[in-house]
Amino acid sequence: MGRVITVARQFGSGGRELGRRLADDLHIAYYDKEILEEIAKRTDFSLHYIQQVVEKNPVPLFPIHIGSSFTATSNPLFDQNLEIFKQQSEIIKEMAHNSDCVIVGRCADYILEKDCHPFRIFVYADLDARVERCRLRAKEGEDTSTKSLAKRIRQIDKGRRRYYEFYTSKTWGAKENYDVLINTTGKDIKKLARIVAANFEDETSL
Amino acid sequence: MGRVITVARQFGSGGRELGRRLADDLHIAYYDKEILEEIAKRTDFSLHYIQQVVEKNPVPLFPIHIGSSFTATSNPLFDQNLEIFKQQSEIIKEMAHNSDCVIVGRCADYILEKDCHPFRIFVYADLDARVERCRLRAKEGEDTSTKSLAKRIRQIDKGRRRYYEFYTSKTWGAKENYDVLINTTGKDIKKLARIVAANFEDETSL
Repeated sequence: MGRVITVARQFGSGGRELGRRLADDLHIAYYDKEILEEIAKRTDFSLHYIQQVVEKNPVPLFPIHIGSSFTATSNPLFDQNLEIFKQQSEIIKEMAHNSDCVIVGRCADYILEKDCHPFRIFVYADLDARVERCRLRAKEGEDTSTKSLAKRIRQIDKGRRRYYEFYTSKTWGAKENYDVLINTTGKDIKKLARIVAANFEDETSL
Repeated sequence: MGRVITVARQFGSGGRELGRRLADDLHIAYYDKEILEEIAKRTDFSLHYIQQVVEKNPVPLFPIHIGSSFTATSNPLFDQNLEIFKQQSEIIKEMAHNSDCVIVGRCADYILEKDCHPFRIFVYADLDARVERCRLRAKEGEDTSTKSLAKRIRQIDKGRRRYYEFYTSKTWGAKENYDVLINTTGKDIKKLARIVAANFEDETSL
């Protein structure tokens, strides 16, 4: 089978690092921000605007499914969101079709579910561990108090949850939607990536 | 570190088989029904009665925690349940202390959490896959209609959930309580066990 691995993750859990290391270990493509750049190329939207939409997804008006037709509504902002998601879905499908890859976030597990049965990973960790991880990676001048970091983590995850649930009508992080869920609390991401990669390298591949 | 692995599982997901194979692959002890036999040896309760209590846990009167003292109540049935759980907790701790092992079910993840930081696995699968697995393993004369099997699966899992949540005050199957959650839908349990075992065998051990 083609190796398409999707990684969804709580903010600060190390999911992105796990995905990147996994792609490195397996010598396959890694897609993350590249998807947004590709959307920008194919549409009239700027990369900055797309980032805004994807990361700070405006409050949706009503739930839709990818399968539904994308009919125009009377709300231009909403139409733009739909257009970006549609483009994103197409790009993700193309990427998965063209080569083995790891795709982080972007509802890729759901988008690819029927097309290529990706191996779907969800990465999470205790809040304390995520706060600590964010603190270690904070930029200079950033408020690194536990309160502030925990608030930011919750806000970002709320956005991810809302985005995922809006476009998929499934519960973000619910085990039913993934093949494996990995708790990174107290774990070494490098080792974890090697272990997951090993599952795809030998004859015991899933 | 000592290798203590706990396996909680949805009924019909193959969790017990995964646990047994894992213990075989790692050449470590496997505890499941042995725990009940040990309780019977240490108490006045028959094995049959203990099985009834553990598998068809009567409706509890109020939630308790393991840490609480087990004071006598005015309800003999409830007292017996508490006594059995107390014995079970002690036996599980002894087993984990004495040797590397795999322990299936029995709130072992929670009981051992503070003592020896077990590697906590939760095994699950889609309902269709669990129905199919139960059908393949049905005894002669058993009603193997999808409706009947699905009903039985739901009933047993309801009991497991209630039992776990009563004694631990945590949510059964919620990812926060485990190190890894494995979806066995469409997977070969033998291969899965080998993969998990490999994580404990080499230098990349978690």
